[in-house]
Amino acid sequence: MRTLLKRTIALGALTLLLSSVNAQNYYEKGKQWVKKAEELKPVLKETIVEPAGIVEIVKNKDAFQGWEAKTVAPIDSLYGQSIRKLKSVIVDLGDHYTGYFSFGLETIWGSPDSPVRFRFTFGEVPSELVTPFDPFEGGISRAWLQDHEFNIMHLPGSYNIERRMACRYVKIDLIGSSPYFDFKISDVKFKAVTSADKAPEELASSTSEMIKKIDAISIKTLKECMQTVYEDGPKRDRRLWVGDMYLESLANVYSFQNHQLTQRCLYLLAGLSDDEGYVLGTVFEEPEPHAQAGQRLMDYSLLYNVTLKEYMAATKDKETAMDLWPVAKRQLNIISQYVSKDGLVDYERANKEWWLFFDWKDGLNKAAGIQGLMIFALNETYELAKLLNVESEVKYIPGLVKKMKRAALKNMYNSKTGLFECGDDAQVSYASQAWMIMGGVLSEKASQRALNNVMKHQGALKPGGPYMCHYFTQALMKSKMYDEAKALLIDFWGGMVDKGADTFWEVYDPTNDFLSPYGFFPINSYCHAWSCTPVYFIRKYPEIFQK
Amino acid sequence: MRTLLKRTIALGALTLLLSSVNAQNYYEKGKQWVKKAEELKPVLKETIVEPAGIVEIVKNKDAFQGWEAKTVAPIDSLYGQSIRKLKSVIVDLGDHYTGYFSFGLETIWGSPDSPVRFRFTFGEVPSELVTPFDPFEGGISRAWLQDHEFNIMHLPGSYNIERRMACRYVKIDLIGSSPYFDFKISDVKFKAVTSADKAPEELASSTSEMIKKIDAISIKTLKECMQTVYEDGPKRDRRLWVGDMYLESLANVYSFQNHQLTQRCLYLLAGLSDDEGYVLGTVFEEPEPHAQAGQRLMDYSLLYNVTLKEYMAATKDKETAMDLWPVAKRQLNIISQYVSKDGLVDYERANKEWWLFFDWKDGLNKAAGIQGLMIFALNETYELAKLLNVESEVKYIPGLVKKMKRAALKNMYNSKTGLFECGDDAQVSYASQAWMIMGGVLSEKASQRALNNVMKHQGALKPGGPYMCHYFTQALMKSKMYDEAKALLIDFWGGMVDKGADTFWEVYDPTNDFLSPYGFFPINSYCHAWSCTPVYFIRKYPEIFQK
Repeated sequence: MRTLLKRTIALGALTLLLSSVNAQNYYEKGKQWVKKAEELKPVLKETIVEPAGIVEIVKNKDAFQGWEAKTVAPIDSLYGQSIRKLKSVIVDLGDHYTGYFSFGLETIWGSPDSPVRFRFTFGEVPSELVTPFDPFEGGISRAWLQDHEFNIMHLPGSYNIERRMACRYVKIDLIGSSPYFDFKISDVKFKAVTSADKAPEELASSTSEMIKKIDAISIKTLKECMQTVYEDGPKRDRRLWVGDMYLESLANVYSFQNHQLTQRCLYLLAGLSDDEGYVLGTVFEEPEPHAQAGQRLMDYSLLYNVTLKEYMAATKDKETAMDLWPVAKRQLNIISQYVSKDGLVDYERANKEWWLFFDWKDGLNKAAGIQGLMIFALNETYELAKLLNVESEVKYIPGLVKKMKRAALKNMYNSKTGLFECGDDAQVSYASQAWMIMGGVLSEKASQRALNNVMKHQGALKPGGPYMCHYFTQALMKSKMYDEAKALLIDFWGGMVDKGADTFWEVYDPTNDFLSPYGFFPINSYCHAWSCTPVYFIRKYPEIFQK
Repeated sequence: MRTLLKRTIALGALTLLLSSVNAQNYYEKGKQWVKKAEELKPVLKETIVEPAGIVEIVKNKDAFQGWEAKTVAPIDSLYGQSIRKLKSVIVDLGDHYTGYFSFGLETIWGSPDSPVRFRFTFGEVPSELVTPFDPFEGGISRAWLQDHEFNIMHLPGSYNIERRMACRYVKIDLIGSSPYFDFKISDVKFKAVTSADKAPEELASSTSEMIKKIDAISIKTLKECMQTVYEDGPKRDRRLWVGDMYLESLANVYSFQNHQLTQRCLYLLAGLSDDEGYVLGTVFEEPEPHAQAGQRLMDYSLLYNVTLKEYMAATKDKETAMDLWPVAKRQLNIISQYVSKDGLVDYERANKEWWLFFDWKDGLNKAAGIQGLMIFALNETYELAKLLNVESEVKYIPGLVKKMKRAALKNMYNSKTGLFECGDDAQVSYASQAWMIMGGVLSEKASQRALNNVMKHQGALKPGGPYMCHYFTQALMKSKMYDEAKALLIDFWGGMVDKGADTFWEVYDPTNDFLSPYGFFPINSYCHAWSCTPVYFIRKYPEIFQK
């Protein structure tokens, strides 16, 4: 409410400044959009999961991050013995789940004469259960780590941990009890929640085992991230980011088809856009719907339009698309603000005034990336306009696209190498090629040349993780390099499968299991939305992936 | 429920064995008594406490346990600054309270993009805030210590810590936050709860300052322990023990006069007595009313009778006293089981089959103590019978008392020294003298001689703490040694006052601040029921203490 109030005041001043949008009107719409988003909030589907067994985490230099979970006993063995004597145990849920942990405590002998204290540690991957969290030196909040002290004042009884956890493994450490009674754990349960409902169809029987595995894990990853919004990761950050939403909504079309969740997210982002009507990079649902103030993320704002277009294409829900069309048009202002007369993005200024994300990749020059992404967003927005019969409102787009493509080729394309380069050191990256190709800057043949050459280029900056890897795959598919796309999918996502992934990870570098953008690998999210897109490729192109 | 079911079965077998009690009937009554106790459960009075300020805990070799709380800033100074920068702060509530801690978090800049984690440490005395709790080597549960990890997933907001705490000081340590926003603490509150209501009268203006202080702290101690039962300590064990109840009910008569709480406790203990009808040493209210199985505490069972008699004397509530009279009669069976024909308690067997508590005092021989306490309990039960006109039911008591006194004198009294001795080494203790005198074994003159001599005796075992100190004071009063009683009260309880006590402690040895029956002094209770009796002496005998 305070945010909205502040906005009312800010908008009063802005009314005179804004030409294409009546600010007060926009603000009123914002309120309605948030309300609409709240009406679309899904009731989560709950499933009670019984543990699969007891595991030990053992060293294995060949396993992911050097640790492997080894089943040592059935869950009943826990229920049959004193936890006071056992002291520590790791329960395996059998798969990754997002939700709520509960358990019981039963007396073995004596009367409980004191409280007891546990520390629970919830891990998505084995290393989280055995890596000391303190002293903590990560660059983001220590509180993301899913360890949890739990004091129980009275037993016997049943207990729930209120915080929603994302995990496969639960380590239970007893750290306080009395010598005057004994007790045991009973009835360990995990209430898994998701807004993914409808089960996706089976793949063609001709599909290879690896593709089947990649598809299943990809679907599982998406399912875990589908909560009351498309979250980026159920462990962290547990919230709606535009870039993740775009990829999740693509994957959703080919799996759960919960289009209402996409619709909700589009309304929420629209309703929480900033004082100038720009969609912010990320929004929060709690304690009340609000955006991360000032989180202007240029590539993400533009991908809002693409998501809206894909939503319209998948659902034919013209009413929603028309309702949100002013938001899409508004995002185009970003482009007009930063593209110079000759069609080139003023990268330096854009990069100073906004966050250009693209990838977690140190040193990546994003000048070519933003040039390509803007063209891509323009094309997609124009497609949306055509679907809505409002192309007359954006009739400048084809001309702008033409100019921007020309500028791209003129300023960034090295016709000798067939590669896009940018920055003072003429940096060559997968990201630059992918986004220029997504923008349709090159012919099919030239696209194939660029993609082939970048993959051969020793000094080219590779994707830093799954998010960029998706776009590179998309560029390969667009360029009809099906074998290469399939090989990449099997190499990259299959690499995670080979390393034992239950869900696909936020960060994956085949050469470094411990890579973390946050300075501490246990805080990485190991079930991350932007890794979930293989299902999109596998099912959109069955003739490529399911044969 | 399971306990009751088990009892039904056990009682089936016992019916044939028990002569004086029809077991089934007794069991049915037990259920009714628990129900009655639940009906008498008080609604707690709630008071919102605002913090008094910010303190630092500084070393001071003259302060209790070497630590002193020094006020360094008003509470508003906390509300005006970033807790992210401050990291750690200690709030002083200004006095000891029992209840629930709450606070708010407000954003200073940015949008909270991550959970935050705090560790709160609640301390009754300064040392608890600065003594590392881990590695924990105490003999009872680590979970008693009032430190509490608290994860907050969404802010801004208001937050409550669910566990009831007993404290004066609250240390707040921030252990997880994000660099991308800042925030501050607001609105620290403590909801204090107690079933003590009516304010006690003011003392006579002639009362010395020290007695006034002792009286006030004694009343405060009682108030904090008066919850939905007479607890032993609001920090630990937070439950009803017979011995504590006896002393609390005495103090209550001369202060809050919440007799309904005494009535509730008497019914609860009666209803939860064991299969043979013996009142157990301690009972729990949660998760449902139940006794500590097998906790047979001989001195405590017998003090049940004394409490009932005092309750009847104070309230004239004959209905309750008659209702519970069978319970009192039942406890007398303990005596008849362990007193031999010649009137001497079979101490060895009693000590083997029951817990004889009396005091936390290593090496204390309790043979004389139990002999004296049994006589005391017999006398008091007989007084109760007279108040109820049922002395015909226990007409054997006067004869038994006579025999037991004779046996005490014959076997344990050293007429040369005028002291009671027991054990192979003819141990002389304050406890032995006190209980024999409480039992009226000696004449007034001989009592005075014993008390004077024990206080002069170099080798005599002194009281181990406040509980025994109470009985010794009571023995002095009974023997009309008023000056000595007053001096002891000022020396012992006044000693705690001089050391800065806000409430009287479970353990107090003037020569050793770190004494603990549990191997770790921070787990001691620093607001303990059995220390609360000065109010009883000061107000029952105004001519002694208020002049």
